Order: sequence, then structure tokens, then C-alpha cells
Amino acid sequence: MPSAAHQPDGGDMIGATQQLARFISSSCWDDLPAHIRHEGRRAFLNWLGCGLGGSLHDTTNLLLAALAPCAGPPQATIIGRDERYDVLTVACVNAVAANILDFDDTHMRTIIHATVPVAAALLALGERDTMDGQRILHALILGIEVECRVGNALSPRLFDSGWHPTAVCGVIGAAAACGKALDLDVPRMARALGLAATQSSGSSEMFGTMGKSYNIGHAARNGLLAAMLARVGFTASQHAIESPRGLMGLFGDSRRIGEITAGLGQDWELSGVAYKAYPCGIVTHSVIDACLELRIAHAVHTDRIARMDITVDPITLGVCARNAEPATGLTGKLSLHHCAAVALLDGVVGVPQFADERVSAGDAVALRARISTVSDPALSKGQARVRITFDDGIVCDSAIDHGRGSLQRPLGDAEITQKFEGLARIAGLDDEAIASILADCWTLDELPDVGVLARTRIPAN
Amino acid sequence: MPSAAHQPDGGDMIGATQQLARFISSSCWDDLPAHIRHEGRRAFLNWLGCGLGGSLHDTTNLLLAALAPCAGPPQATIIGRDERYDVLTVACVNAVAANILDFDDTHMRTIIHATVPVAAALLALGERDTMDGQRILHALILGIEVECRVGNALSPRLFDSGWHPTAVCGVIGAAAACGKALDLDVPRMARALGLAATQSSGSSEMFGTMGKSYNIGHAARNGLLAAMLARVGFTASQHAIESPRGLMGLFGDSRRIGEITAGLGQDWELSGVAYKAYPCGIVTHSVIDACLELRIAHAVHTDRIARMDITVDPITLGVCARNAEPATGLTGKLSLHHCAAVALLDGVVGVPQFADERVSAGDAVALRARISTVSDPALSKGQARVRITFDDGIVCDSAIDHGRGSLQRPLGDAEITQKFEGLARIAGLDDEAIASILADCWTLDELPDVGVLARTRIPAN
Repeated sequence: MPSAAHQPDGGDMIGATQQLARFISSSCWDDLPAHIRHEGRRAFLNWLGCGLGGSLHDTTNLLLAALAPCAGPPQATIIGRDERYDVLTVACVNAVAANILDFDDTHMRTIIHATVPVAAALLALGERDTMDGQRILHALILGIEVECRVGNALSPRLFDSGWHPTAVCGVIGAAAACGKALDLDVPRMARALGLAATQSSGSSEMFGTMGKSYNIGHAARNGLLAAMLARVGFTASQHAIESPRGLMGLFGDSRRIGEITAGLGQDWELSGVAYKAYPCGIVTHSVIDACLELRIAHAVHTDRIARMDITVDPITLGVCARNAEPATGLTGKLSLHHCAAVALLDGVVGVPQFADERVSAGDAVALRARISTVSDPALSKGQARVRITFDDGIVCDSAIDHGRGSLQRPLGDAEITQKFEGLARIAGLDDEAIASILADCWTLDELPDVGVLARTRIPAN
Repeated sequence: MPSAAHQPDGGDMIGATQQLARFISSSCWDDLPAHIRHEGRRAFLNWLGCGLGGSLHDTTNLLLAALAPCAGPPQATIIGRDERYDVLTVACVNAVAANILDFDDTHMRTIIHATVPVAAALLALGERDTMDGQRILHALILGIEVECRVGNALSPRLFDSGWHPTAVCGVIGAAAACGKALDLDVPRMARALGLAATQSSGSSEMFGTMGKSYNIGHAARNGLLAAMLARVGFTASQHAIESPRGLMGLFGDSRRIGEITAGLGQDWELSGVAYKAYPCGIVTHSVIDACLELRIAHAVHTDRIARMDITVDPITLGVCARNAEPATGLTGKLSLHHCAAVALLDGVVGVPQFADERVSAGDAVALRARISTVSDPALSKGQARVRITFDDGIVCDSAIDHGRGSLQRPLGDAEITQKFEGLARIAGLDDEAIASILADCWTLDELPDVGVLARTRIPAN
């Protein structure tokens, strides 16, 4: 057994993999605080809306074009559509669909889009096995917990060195959640975590292309498979998280392993998850807020703008630096220039503002050309300063310290409901279907069969 | 477009991803030297034999137990069996089967098991699309070339830091090969390489468990999928190999990028691939040779052995250090103690010597307990010194500088044929079937449909 190599003192130290496996396996519904259960319902509903909103996206269509000819029997449903395939295919596609609009949630400390890979894997499995909503909500909360704790221990180095944190950690969260939903015992749960960790992957070089969302779909699929492999008895290291040749050694610094397990079962990572008000990179949101505020306060005529100066913190500027002149909707989502331009031009920043045609439209191109961005180390993440200079020399300013949808200014339940409604309409759902899903999601733990949430599409007649 | 960030001089520099894509897309059969074509045939035959030998292994059975319920239509065949599934499932399973015996080939500079992920992906695709042997052999040679060149640029750091090189690089080789077989144009080929690179994964913490071979099956499947995604138009970075946030930045040192493309089309990595004489870790082979030599030369009675001293280079000792007392066949494959013991006890080191029962048998346990291993920095990789001290005080020694099957003492074609025959018999193939496959593989480039090589199993009556 390889354990000796990781426990050089030969003592009774229990590694992080085992501690996580025990925590997941032994967790009871009653262990979950009420506010965390509620946050889980919000996270799930927000995720489902994002999946519906992305279900007809080009990226989803192309992924299906490649995967469908290889897909297995109709065990689960592509949300917002009527195709049904095996659970692995569906987990991948539903995660991609829910991420492609860049409207999904964010664990702020790690910038992990926490719910996407976990919920996509879980809902596919839950639909196949007719699981109830309490089982799925419980597993979702645990999966997010494990995913974000692993992310905490690896951050900020993980993102800084070029990895895609949601992908690297998401596969482990998906395995944890699916392992819980499948009632794995502790040794099998530990192996599921290991088989997930050895599949951790995803380069941020894919950002701005379909490959970014693919990373997350891949994580969802592989986490589910890790749990299914462990269930049938496939073997793996029982120390894959903490080992120097395992996750911590490969992606981070093994000395920070304690962050994975400190306060486990007491502190809950879902408390640090925020829901976006705009379907684009979270780093752009305060700039959008500032522009929307200026537009209302000063009834801005965009054709009279001589120049516009945006000041943000250095990290935000670094993330967005490539994208002053975005060529596609996907790159527009990480463009401060484009987000500011459409906020002022359109007065709303929704899914249509990131269509390829909107990004290449003449008015957006012209306004972007008058925008300058600069960083100020005195600003922290989430702070933005926007100054507009009109052609008559008049200047107006806006300063945002926390964007709408941040942890400091969270979306309320009514706003999450409203966001869901808008996304569900993109998928063509009618009012009755939307109301039914909303009722089910806000009482998710009382739902007898989560499959109804996957089979959302109302046929045309 | 993200290219500017990687070409800060804005010049006409062509990145490694583009250079590889051009090389693969434009390569013609006539560009391949005759000796490399022949090495490709040897590699393919050796791989197919390993796949047959592992086709009924527990690991293969468990993998199928998890994957089969999710598998798609019968496009390709699990070699050595009669199950047929979609190409992605088959690529994964056939790679795992071909690696699980630890009998597959080795690119010596990187310790990449070069053929496994590439051939497994290719044969599945080739069977589905009724491709001919020349197309497959050509694509195999190119896939191995790309895989090992990437490995050269990342080694030795890749393995030293805990990654599984065959998995990390194999996905890229499989994508290159499948992209060639699918006739992708240069932009799509570059995206296939990128979609593969963003899936690069695999921890060596899995060594000694089924997870090790799973890493390689995962690579085969994902490389094939990367090519299929690129084919339908899925987008990805065109700079995913050389980018600081891409493969070189995440797994290695971007300054060594030149090793990927230097001499491309002139020097061929297949020249550096060796075929194993024994189904276990290549680092154990010289010790096995030494023991077999001693057994013959001195008609060793193992019950008279008082002690046995094995001296190897420090790296070899490090790789094997965990496994003085292996508990399973898989750990026995990386145990100098076990390999030496069975070589002396059985006089042959084949697949049965690594069955769990053989590893736990009393005579093997007893002899292993009398073995000591030590490293000598004066020895280089492949050198081994074995000394046996008998209970009457008599001492005999053997010194091996290059193990059988090394690049310095390669297996001849007749030995590869013989190895294949033994492995095919494990899968229950009869003499007629074996002769037919051998004839097809030694003239692979003349075969009209490679699918016949996948459909190898002869029904019982």
C-alpha cells in the first residue's frame, strides 16, 4: 500500500482524501444549516436557468454534433431540448450549456463557477435513477463544498499559473456529489475522489473560445464517471488529494493541505458564492453598473461622448487586457470596452449584448474606440471608476465599490427568479412551464423526482 | 484573437501549435522513411498483442462494467472480445487493456508508452470509418511523433513532478493521429491539438492501481474526441501548446518549446521506442535479465539462497522503493524484489508471474524477504548488478548493462511475433487467427480495412 510514503511518521494521521470521504459519506441532511440549504436552492435554480439560456447556443449545438453519434441510451435529458442520451454525455453537454453564457455563479475566493460541473453531473444521474430533490440538494451542497475547499487550498496560484480553476476542481466536486448520491462507502468515496483528481485538467488558454466551457463539461462528465468507476470497484490511490504526486503536489503547494479540511462541516463555502446580474466575466460587472448609473443619471447621448476613461484594479485589467477590440461574443464577455459600450448604448446588459452581431455592430465598435482603460493599485477587486467626457467638455463620473450580484450586494430571491424567467424564455419555455419549475426549485428538497426539472421543454403544440 | 499575446513582436513567428498542425496536415506517406514505416508496423503489432493480452483482465472488466451502460452504438470492437460500442468508449477500453499488463512499448527518453493511446484511438476510428492500413499506419507514426516531441520538451520535469507522461502527452498524440486520419485542415488540426492539450491530465499517484491504466484510456478517448470536436467546427485557442497558459506553461518550461519542432520531419521519435521482453516496469528488466542469467549459469536452487543483493541506479531504486512487499500483481510490476524472485523461482517472467496469487504465494514472499536493494550513483539507467549468496557461503554475480528489449538490445521481428503469439493466446485466439493477424500487421499498409484487426475474437464454435 502506498500510504507509508505520505505519512512518513507512520502515525495515525488521516489524510485529506480520507477526511473528505468520511465527511461526505457520513453527512446527514440534518447536518446542513437552513441558510445553506436555501443557498443550495438558489444555486440550483440559477444554474438551471443558465443551462436553459445556453441550451440552443452554437457551442451546445457543435458539442452535440460531435458527441451525439457516440452517445448511449436515453437515460437523461439535455435541458431545454428534447434529446436524451446517456448520463455521461448529458452531464458534459448540460455543463457546457450552463457555462457558455458566462452567467453562472462564482465562488468569489477562487473564481470557481461552483454549481455548473456539480449540478450538471448530479441532475443527469438523478434523472436516470429517479432520485428525489432532497438527495440531489444534499449532494449538490457537499459537492460544492469539496470543490471550493480544494480550490481554496490551490488558490490563487491555480488561476495565476494558467489553470482553469472550475475545471480542475469541478471534477472533484462532481465526483463527491455523485458519490454521495450513489451512497458510496468511505473507501469507494476516497477512490472516486482520486479517480477525479487524476482527471483534473483545463487550461485558461481556452478562454474566449468554446474550449473554455468544454473544460467544465469535461469536468462534469469525468467526475460522474469517477463515482461510477469507484462504485463498481475500480481501484485508485486513497491519497490522491494530499499526495505530493497527487492533486496538491501537481497543482499547488502541499503545505496548504490544511485549508481543505479546516472547519469542515462548520463553515460552508456556499456562503461565498455570488450570482451574476450580467452574462459576462464577473470582473466587468462594476464597470457595467457604473455605466448604467451614468446613463440614467445623465441621460447620456452616446454620440456626444468624446472619451471615456475606465479605472479598475490591476488584476481586472490584466484579465481583460487582450479584449479591447473583441471579435466574437465570447471575447466580448471579457472586454471592459465592450461591456461599457453596450451598457451605455443599450441600457441593458443581457444575453443579446454578447451575440457576435452585437459585438461587431458599428455603434459598439465606434464607442469602444473612444474608451481607455487603466489600472490603479489603490482600487481593489470589484471597484470601478468611470468618467465620461462629452464633446462640449462636460465631465461626469461614477464610482462603484461593489457590483450588483457581488457578495456585498447579492441578488435577492426575487432577482434570481427574474433572472431565471429571462433565461428560460430564451429556451422557449412558456409561462406555465416556468412557474412550475420555479415552484419545484424553491422547494427542491420536497420534489419526489428531479427528472422533471431536466425534461423542461414544452413542445411547440 | 489571442495571438498577439503570444507573439509580442507582432512578427511572422509561427508558434509550435501551427507548425505541428502544418506538419501533420501536409505529411505524405512518401515522406516517411522505410525504417520508420517498419518501426510503425512493429509498434502496432506489439500494441495489438498487449491489448489482446489485457482484454480479459479484471481492470478491463471493471472499466466496461462502468462504461458499457453509458456506451453508444456498435461502431468499433473491444479487441479480444465480442462487445462493440461507440468509438470513444472503445478507444478508452482498448488503451486500458493494452497498458494494464505493463507490457507495452516505451519511448525511452520520456518513458512514454507511445503507441497505446494513439493506436487505441486510431483503430476505433479506423474500424468505424473502414480506413485502410496505410492511412492508419501513417497517422500512427505522426501521432507518436507529436506525442513524443511534446514529451521531450516537458521531460524530465514532467515525470519528476508527479505527472504521468503517457497520459499528459498521449492525448495530444491521439488527437494528432485522429486528426490526420480524418484529414483535418491546418486550422482544425491546430484546434484539435488545443482541445487535446486542455484535457492533458494524469497523476502518477495512480501507479500501482487501476487508475494508472485509466489515465491512458482517458487520454486515448479524449484525443479522439478533440479531433472530432475540431472537425465539426468547435473552437479553441490556436496556440495551446506554446502559450504560457497552455501546455508548456502549465506542465513545463516554455523556453524549451524549440524541442518540439527542431528537426521535424527529419528525425523520427519511433527510433527511440523500445519493446518490452517482460510484462512489468521497464526499470526492472535488467534485474530480471541478471536473475535469469544466474539461474541458467548456476542452476540455482532457490531454497539455498541466504541473501540476494541488487544494485541499480538511484532513479530506478526511487521508482521501485515503495514496492519491496507488493500486495497485488499491479504493484509487483514495479517491485525489484518480486521481479527478481519470480525470475529465479520460475525461470520465466510472463503475465502469470504478476497474477495476484503469484505475488502473494509463499515461495515468492519468502524469497523476497531475503532480497536487499541498494543504489549506486555510478550505475546508469538500465544497469543492474545482482549477487546471490548461498547458505554455504558461495557467491555468484551477474552484471547487466542493457536489458533485453532495450534500444541497445532490441527485440527482433521474430521476438515481437513470438511475444504477440503468447499474448493472443491469453485472449483465446487460435493458431489460424494468430497467423492471419500477424500477416496483416507485418504488411499493415496493404490492408484494405483495419477493422479486421479489431474483430479478432474467434467464437467458441
